Amino acid sequence: MSQYWSKLVHDLDPYVPGEQPKDQRYIKLNTNECPYPPSPAALAAIHTAADDTLRLYPDPNADVLKDAIAEHYAVDRANVFVGNGSDEVLAHVFHGLLKHEKPLLFPDISYSFYPVYANLYQIEAQQIPLRDDFRLCLGDYAVDNGGIIFPNPNAPTSMAVGLEAIEALLQTHPDSVVVVDEAYIDFGGETAIPLTATYPNLLVVQTFSKSRSLAGLRVGFAVGHTDLINALERVKNSFNSYPLGRMAIAGAAAAMRDKAYFETMCQRIIATRENTVQKLTELGFTVLPSAANFVFARPPAGNAEAIYLALKQRGVLVRYFNKPRINEYLRITIGTDEEMAAFLQVLSEL
Amino acid sequence: MSQYWSKLVHDLDPYVPGEQPKDQRYIKLNTNECPYPPSPAALAAIHTAADDTLRLYPDPNADVLKDAIAEHYAVDRANVFVGNGSDEVLAHVFHGLLKHEKPLLFPDISYSFYPVYANLYQIEAQQIPLRDDFRLCLGDYAVDNGGIIFPNPNAPTSMAVGLEAIEALLQTHPDSVVVVDEAYIDFGGETAIPLTATYPNLLVVQTFSKSRSLAGLRVGFAVGHTDLINALERVKNSFNSYPLGRMAIAGAAAAMRDKAYFETMCQRIIATRENTVQKLTELGFTVLPSAANFVFARPPAGNAEAIYLALKQRGVLVRYFNKPRINEYLRITIGTDEEMAAFLQVLSEL
Repeated sequence: MSQYWSKLVHDLDPYVPGEQPKDQRYIKLNTNECPYPPSPAALAAIHTAADDTLRLYPDPNADVLKDAIAEHYAVDRANVFVGNGSDEVLAHVFHGLLKHEKPLLFPDISYSFYPVYANLYQIEAQQIPLRDDFRLCLGDYAVDNGGIIFPNPNAPTSMAVGLEAIEALLQTHPDSVVVVDEAYIDFGGETAIPLTATYPNLLVVQTFSKSRSLAGLRVGFAVGHTDLINALERVKNSFNSYPLGRMAIAGAAAAMRDKAYFETMCQRIIATRENTVQKLTELGFTVLPSAANFVFARPPAGNAEAIYLALKQRGVLVRYFNKPRINEYLRITIGTDEEMAAFLQVLSEL
Repeated sequence: MSQYWSKLVHDLDPYVPGEQPKDQRYIKLNTNECPYPPSPAALAAIHTAADDTLRLYPDPNADVLKDAIAEHYAVDRANVFVGNGSDEVLAHVFHGLLKHEKPLLFPDISYSFYPVYANLYQIEAQQIPLRDDFRLCLGDYAVDNGGIIFPNPNAPTSMAVGLEAIEALLQTHPDSVVVVDEAYIDFGGETAIPLTATYPNLLVVQTFSKSRSLAGLRVGFAVGHTDLINALERVKNSFNSYPLGRMAIAGAAAAMRDKAYFETMCQRIIATRENTVQKLTELGFTVLPSAANFVFARPPAGNAEAIYLALKQRGVLVRYFNKPRINEYLRITIGTDEEMAAFLQVLSEL
C-alpha cells in the first residue's frame, strides 16, 4: 500500500502462475507445457533472426506471422491479431471488447486469470456455475450480458464443448461478443475459427505455448471479424507498438508453417493422455473426459492436496487448486511416456 | 466503429510509430535505433537460449535480468521492474502510478505516446509548454498535480535537464510520483537512478532499444523505491505473467553485463553526433543542443516537410512531425559515420 499507487492498484488480486522451479530436478507436470521441443524449423528461424538486425525495431504489425496464421486457418490477414502470449491478447480483449455496462459472463470454474482481468479493467462479471459433473452448458448463459468468454476445452476441467453448442450460443447472443479461448483446442477439440466467417460476434483466441511448444517465446493470437480485430489493434497501438520481437515473429511463423511436426506432436500427446487416463482409472482415480494436454483427476480418497505435496516431495510437480468444488482434484499435464510412467510409479507408491 | 467495441475504444487515438520499411533500401535515420549491432555477448546468450527449453515458460520474475540491471546500477533486485519494451513499462506506469484525481503533467512537446496512454487509462492530463527555445524548465511544473512524467533527454528536442533541477522537482512534489523517462540518457545525460535511493517518489524508466542496440528484442525496465516497483508488479501480474520470453531475458542480461561494448558504442555515436551537428550548422541548420542519439534541426528556410519528402525520395528516412511549434524541424537519428556522410551529401544537393 502506498500513497503513490493509483486507486485501482490497491484492489488488484494478481494472477499466480504455476511454479517455475529454476533447477530441472522436477518432472514438471504443472503448467501444461509441451514435453517435446519446438519444431526444428521454428528454432532455425529463431537462430536466423538472432543477428545484427536485432538493433532494429520489428514490424509493428507482424505481417509475416499474421500471414502464416491466416494461411493455416484459411482466413485473411485482417482477421488475425497477434500478441505477446495469449495472456496479453486476452487482456486487450477484456479491455477493448468485453467492458460494457452489462455484466461479462464466464464459468465459475475456469481460467483463473479471467476474474483478474475483470478486476484490472473494472468490468462487472457474473460467474455461471458449471454443472455438478463439471460440464459447461452454454444454454446456462441465457442471461442479459455484455459479453461471454470461456475456454474450450475448459481449464482446469479439460472438457470440451462442441461447435453446435457454440453456434447456438452465437445465435442466441448476436449483440454480445463471444470469446472462445482455445489454448488447448489442438489436443482433441474442434476449433471455432471457421465460424468466424459467419458470426461477426465471435472471437477465437489461441496460443503458441501449448501445442506448438513455444511457451518460452511468448506468442498468442486471435481470429475474428475485422471489426473485432480493429478494436484490438486500437488498444494494442495505444499500449505498445511492438509487442512481438523479431525472433518471436520469425519463430512463431515457422512453427505455424510446420504443420506435419505440429500434428505429430499433438497425436503423440493424445496417445500418452489416453494411456495415462487408463492407468489413473486403474488406480481408482476419477478422471474427467479430457480433450486437452492435461487431465483433471480425483484420487479415490479425495485427498488431492496431500497427494500434490507428496508428489512434490518426490520430485513430481502437478497443479492443485485450493478452491471450492475442485479442491479434491489434481490437474496433471501430459508429459512424455517416460515422465508419465515415472509419475504413475511414484503415485502408486504413495 | 462497432457495437461490440468497449466504449473507450471509440475514443482512442493510437500512437503511430516511425516508418519501418520492409526492404533495406533506406538509410534509416527515423526511429532512433542504434546503427551498430548488439553486443556479441548478447547475441551469443540469445543463441544459447534458443534451444529445446523454449517449450517451457520463462521465469515470470526474470530474476537473471533484474540482477544484471541491479548490479549495473548498484540497486537491489527489488528496486527493478522489467517489461516488454519500455513502452509496456510506461503503460503499466500510467495505469498503476499516474492515474489520480489530480491531473498528470507532461511537456507539450514530448514523447507522443504520453497522451495516448493518458487516453487509454482515462487519466486527466495537463501539458506544460516547453519554453520558446524548447528548454524543459521543471520550475514550470509548480501546479497541483497527480504525477509528473518527462523524458530526459526530451524527445524529439534532444535536450537534457540536469540532476539538480530534477532533485529540486522531487523536493517540491513529495506527494507526486515523478517519472523520468531516460530512453536516451546514455548519449550524454546523467541518469537519475542514484536519486531513487533518496526519493521514494522517483521512478526512472530505461530501454534496451537504443544504447544497447536491441530494439528488435523488446526489453525495457524501471528503477525506483520498492513501493513503486510493487505497484508495477501488481499491474503486470494482473496483465501478463510472462511478458519477457527466455531469449529476451538472457539477451538483455548479457547486454547489460557487457559494459565495455556499451560504452564504446555510446562514445562512437556521440562523436558522430558532434560531427553531424557541425556539418548541419555549416549548412545553415539551427540544431538544438543534443544529449541523445538524434538531433533536432531546423533547415535555414524552415521547409522541414519538403526536405523530409525530398530525402525520402532519395533513400534517406528522417522523422518529421506535422505539429504546432515543431513543424519546421526534422528529427534525425545518428547513424554510422558513413550513413551521416551520405545523408549530408544528399542534403547538400537538395
